[in-house]
Amino acid sequence: MIMTMKSSKLVGPLLKQLGPRFFSSVTTGAMINEPVRGILLIRTATFHRAGTLPVPGVRNGSTVALGNTEVQEKELPNSSLNGDGQDKKGFVSYWGILPAQVTNEDGTVWRWNSFRPWETYQANLSIDLKKHHEPNTFLDKVAYWTIKALRVPTDIFFQRRYGCRAMMLETVAAVPGMVAGMLLHCKSLRRFEHSGGWIKALLEEAENERMHLMTFMEVSRPRWYERALVFAVQGVFFNVYFLVYLISPKLAHRAVGYLEEEAIHSYTEFLKELDKGTIENVPAPAIAIDYWRLPADSTLRDVVLSVRADEAHHRDVNHFASDIHYQGHELREAPAPLGYH
Amino acid sequence: MIMTMKSSKLVGPLLKQLGPRFFSSVTTGAMINEPVRGILLIRTATFHRAGTLPVPGVRNGSTVALGNTEVQEKELPNSSLNGDGQDKKGFVSYWGILPAQVTNEDGTVWRWNSFRPWETYQANLSIDLKKHHEPNTFLDKVAYWTIKALRVPTDIFFQRRYGCRAMMLETVAAVPGMVAGMLLHCKSLRRFEHSGGWIKALLEEAENERMHLMTFMEVSRPRWYERALVFAVQGVFFNVYFLVYLISPKLAHRAVGYLEEEAIHSYTEFLKELDKGTIENVPAPAIAIDYWRLPADSTLRDVVLSVRADEAHHRDVNHFASDIHYQGHELREAPAPLGYH
Ligand SMILES: [Fe+2]
Ligand SMILES: [Fe+2]
Ligand SMILES: [Fe+2]
Ligand SMILES: [Fe+2]
Repeated sequence: MIMTMKSSKLVGPLLKQLGPRFFSSVTTGAMINEPVRGILLIRTATFHRAGTLPVPGVRNGSTVALGNTEVQEKELPNSSLNGDGQDKKGFVSYWGILPAQVTNEDGTVWRWNSFRPWETYQANLSIDLKKHHEPNTFLDKVAYWTIKALRVPTDIFFQRRYGCRAMMLETVAAVPGMVAGMLLHCKSLRRFEHSGGWIKALLEEAENERMHLMTFMEVSRPRWYERALVFAVQGVFFNVYFLVYLISPKLAHRAVGYLEEEAIHSYTEFLKELDKGTIENVPAPAIAIDYWRLPADSTLRDVVLSVRADEAHHRDVNHFASDIHYQGHELREAPAPLGYH
Repeated sequence: MIMTMKSSKLVGPLLKQLGPRFFSSVTTGAMINEPVRGILLIRTATFHRAGTLPVPGVRNGSTVALGNTEVQEKELPNSSLNGDGQDKKGFVSYWGILPAQVTNEDGTVWRWNSFRPWETYQANLSIDLKKHHEPNTFLDKVAYWTIKALRVPTDIFFQRRYGCRAMMLETVAAVPGMVAGMLLHCKSLRRFEHSGGWIKALLEEAENERMHLMTFMEVSRPRWYERALVFAVQGVFFNVYFLVYLISPKLAHRAVGYLEEEAIHSYTEFLKELDKGTIENVPAPAIAIDYWRLPADSTLRDVVLSVRADEAHHRDVNHFASDIHYQGHELREAPAPLGYH
């Protein structure tokens, strides 16, 4: 007999219970045996609430002995697939890790596994897009002219295909935050030092850039040679950025600051093409509407506005990080830009 | 004149406003010019609330032109330092990134920058500590015996000094989650694929292990040769794990599963020594009380119980991840153990 363990429908009400009680926890348990399509479904879930965070830590609340440690799979109708194609029911495990089902405000099932409702936000469109760091020192000039030089082949390759350009550039933009966060994490461990929140802040930046990619993927599908290019560019860029960050984090963050200034410029050009009509202003992809909490009738233009605002925030964070190093300090000594969107 | 920008006291009330409204945002702005100790403090902050998450995205809500892009510093009394030694006021920036001041339920200032109230939780002490994956396949046996073999030098080096042992081992334990999360992030970018939440889940594991380290650091201070050892071990282990994960993620996750089984054993021994009185049951460090929401009079024993429960959760996650690979699937196809503490 094939047994499938999945989370119960108790998560819906859970989301409605979330109040401002900070230091308490709610645990809800249920076990329902229910025959579905001739297969016994064992539904069991315990939800543990951490603070006000609706993170459903799903546990094996019962002692269901499956007798073996194999992950078993069950044929599923397509309707059990999520927005990002994840099969929420197809895995059974001795390890008691069950899929948590998150619901929207209106009770419908949350479609995404790669991000959750509490990670969504409204972009701050009023951010100053013109802020710029004058390259004064030698290292600043190295950073500035490296980025300016890299624009030449990029402009030649993409010309005015800004949708494609955005998609490709986001695969690169998501690397620095991850590399920096990882290096700071290792440093924190090695030196027995607190991170001051910077690890998380930089990993959040990487996550945000990956969401930009997931969005533009819906608008512009990569061709085989573009995939090959991304593969090669990532291999080079990851290693170069890793080394530069080890040698000079102030140079690394400054370069990312300038990269973000270029990204703002590039998205401004994208908006001009949309307004001229040379790029069709298609409806916003579902993922973008959910991630930036956009109205249902939003278009690609609204998405690009949100993304551009994000890039301006990344510019601030990275120039700020570079400034801290220029002052002879380490990032952990300064306020980390947590949740700075 | 030295100008210091810091966040206003408006964050206190913000935390109290947090209700279950999911798709709204609260923005609070203030600008107060206030002379303090002969120095002009410009307090300005805009807090943006993402979902129910009290993540204060602090922005430069006004157009304060500082005229230059230098980070400036100001002498500060010691009282402005946080629990983890971060100076919340000493940085001024053109970039508008201001320190957010988070308060506890009782209105006192939150002491930690490396973690926030909404990341704290109560450990699930009822988790099954005896669960084990029988090594059946060749790779399982490689993983199992590698970990068993590594215990021999570890036992010889540390003997019964479990506090020191815990601290040292946590510097290693925080590496796999970071490496795996980073590799999955890069893969997601390269392949234009969703992660299914696994990147975040694995990074959360790394974060949790780092918190273990930050806790044991308070109980047992590393000596110079221990610092040197950590340096060397991290250099080797990071690279070995990176390569193993690239070649065989199922082996990598299985090995971490067994490492966590050993960690549970090691913490059980730690508890025995505490009960025998050979290790003094000192009061729990402040960071542990805040992170695991322990009562104020908790002791080291309570901390070790929470940490051991965390290790059991890591064991489940990693054996589960290995099982998914054994079934010929990728992690993104299965439910990610987000918030599984
Ligand atoms: Fe981006
Ligand atoms: Fe960016
Ligand atoms: Fe640990
Ligand atoms: Fe662990």
